[in-house]
Amino acid sequence: MDTETPLKTIEADFENNILRILDQTRLPEQEIYLDLQTPEEIWEAIYRLKVRGAPALGVAAALGMAICAARIGAKDFPSFYRKFKTVKNYLSTARPTAVNLFAALDRMEACLQRLPAPPIGTALVELRSEALKIQAEDISACRKIGEYGLQLLRPGMGILTHCNAGRLAVSGCGTALAPVYLGHEKGYRFTVFADETRPLLQGARLTAFELQKAGIDVTLICDNMASIVMKQKKIQAILVGCDRIAANGDTANKIGTSGLAILARHYHIPFYVLGPTSTIDFGCPTGDSIRIEERPAEEITDRGYLHRMAPENIKTYNPAFDVTDHKLITAIVTEKGIAYPPFGHSLRFPASGE
Amino acid sequence: MDTETPLKTIEADFENNILRILDQTRLPEQEIYLDLQTPEEIWEAIYRLKVRGAPALGVAAALGMAICAARIGAKDFPSFYRKFKTVKNYLSTARPTAVNLFAALDRMEACLQRLPAPPIGTALVELRSEALKIQAEDISACRKIGEYGLQLLRPGMGILTHCNAGRLAVSGCGTALAPVYLGHEKGYRFTVFADETRPLLQGARLTAFELQKAGIDVTLICDNMASIVMKQKKIQAILVGCDRIAANGDTANKIGTSGLAILARHYHIPFYVLGPTSTIDFGCPTGDSIRIEERPAEEITDRGYLHRMAPENIKTYNPAFDVTDHKLITAIVTEKGIAYPPFGHSLRFPASGE
Repeated sequence: MDTETPLKTIEADFENNILRILDQTRLPEQEIYLDLQTPEEIWEAIYRLKVRGAPALGVAAALGMAICAARIGAKDFPSFYRKFKTVKNYLSTARPTAVNLFAALDRMEACLQRLPAPPIGTALVELRSEALKIQAEDISACRKIGEYGLQLLRPGMGILTHCNAGRLAVSGCGTALAPVYLGHEKGYRFTVFADETRPLLQGARLTAFELQKAGIDVTLICDNMASIVMKQKKIQAILVGCDRIAANGDTANKIGTSGLAILARHYHIPFYVLGPTSTIDFGCPTGDSIRIEERPAEEITDRGYLHRMAPENIKTYNPAFDVTDHKLITAIVTEKGIAYPPFGHSLRFPASGE
Repeated sequence: MDTETPLKTIEADFENNILRILDQTRLPEQEIYLDLQTPEEIWEAIYRLKVRGAPALGVAAALGMAICAARIGAKDFPSFYRKFKTVKNYLSTARPTAVNLFAALDRMEACLQRLPAPPIGTALVELRSEALKIQAEDISACRKIGEYGLQLLRPGMGILTHCNAGRLAVSGCGTALAPVYLGHEKGYRFTVFADETRPLLQGARLTAFELQKAGIDVTLICDNMASIVMKQKKIQAILVGCDRIAANGDTANKIGTSGLAILARHYHIPFYVLGPTSTIDFGCPTGDSIRIEERPAEEITDRGYLHRMAPENIKTYNPAFDVTDHKLITAIVTEKGIAYPPFGHSLRFPASGE
């Protein structure tokens, strides 16, 4: 189902050593593709959310690392490897919360570590191959998440989603939205409500955009309208993505997710988290160990407004994520299957997948 | 404490028959006062939220009605009264949810009904006097609400508020914010968090503005950040205003209020509703009978943005209010005292006050 989308979130052009991304800060007004070549350009694209979404960050970092590696001038492998590490460490500072960014960069380095001081040309081939593998795994994981997730849904359901965990957040058909796309193909006729997701409006700009483009019935609401649509029984399931899942199931995701989970519990609506197993960080025992990114005040006060919408010099607090308590999560849907509470056990899927 | 504020939300100039309001849609960028003279101008100012806030709507409608009445050309009282009714019915269609608008207009009509076909000049004097009485009652109610509300707070508390129920929503020192102003005068040093309150950003534009102006410590957050600040124990009390309170305590207030109440319950934080008893509608047995205003899509998709932030022709749902279940409300603070559950009894304050 991915072949039909005209939106290529991330694409590597290894011939010209270019990472091509769709600039998501310009959507839905303009579909502009950016050609990134340097570590600084890639870092800036990630930091400014030109490319965003936990799985997409992993893919962009991996492909970007392969491209930056090809631009490293080095005479021998040890010198190449040192410079590779410098770039890797730099890219990993672009955003702190999504584990996929670090996991992908670690895989890229591990790929080099497996090689016994090869010619640099060989190292570059291996790096490209590993990055493409990460991207292929992302596409395949999305499809699997869609299939597992669809088992939890029924035709005609009202679905609420937050932020964007769709095609624009991944290389494939999305995480939270994967079952929506798959169900739509099967004629399920869902009614989707998209939280606009302040401050950066990923729900309005991205989710509403890509669902509308796919011909899926989508209604845009402000974040603070989630309670009333739940109360009016317009919602039978809540589907959200994730940026990092702790070993106990606590889930960091876009700011506002934890509030939705509390509302879902109040209104007796199932609350599902969907994402690849690469988002699970067994090194984090609970959500308390997840670092939450704080972003600049201007995102709340200025960004995109025609007029001043907040007083000058107003103090703000702008956390980009929050942690949803595992007790509020009905199930976590991954490419390896559906985990139900207690997540401490169920998230440890057998290595073979199921 | 009201004398110090430079903000005159609503003022009647009876010599020139002008209703002067501070245009709240232009704040915080510009402080512009509008001189309204006709029913159409007053209707439009209410509909477009140039004047807003349940008590302020009552005051604006009453003063506006007195001003419009003076412009009625009529030879005798019956003809004057018919034209008065036409204007009254027209003004009452400007917004449907806040009961104060209807209650104030009804009081203005009742004032005419008490007079046995007087000279029109006498009727006008009575109408002005009744409208000024409504405004004076509002100012006095705010002060009382502040005093009762302050009994529930302690110095140093973190307080979360939603929308604007401050000086800009009334003629006096606010409803939800009245105890904050009073406490500030007494050196209580509160830390206030203001939800920005999408789609029209009354929290960012008005609450943050007026609290900053008063020198009160205020931090602006997006609506979807309420859960994380509660979880981080930054909030010890939630104070909100109200647009209509049903006989059982169910409370209509700005969209998003019901969600906050559910979060407050989850995090064990007291949730207080503050407003004058004129907001209680004993004709509404429960919140189910309160009509919720739906407003145009453009408020969500277009308003105030430099760039297009949502796809063209996207479907939206834009309810301006929601109803908070009385079971989630810790107490309702009025100018006659504090009502605790069960509200069916406690809201019926003795006529003499408490």
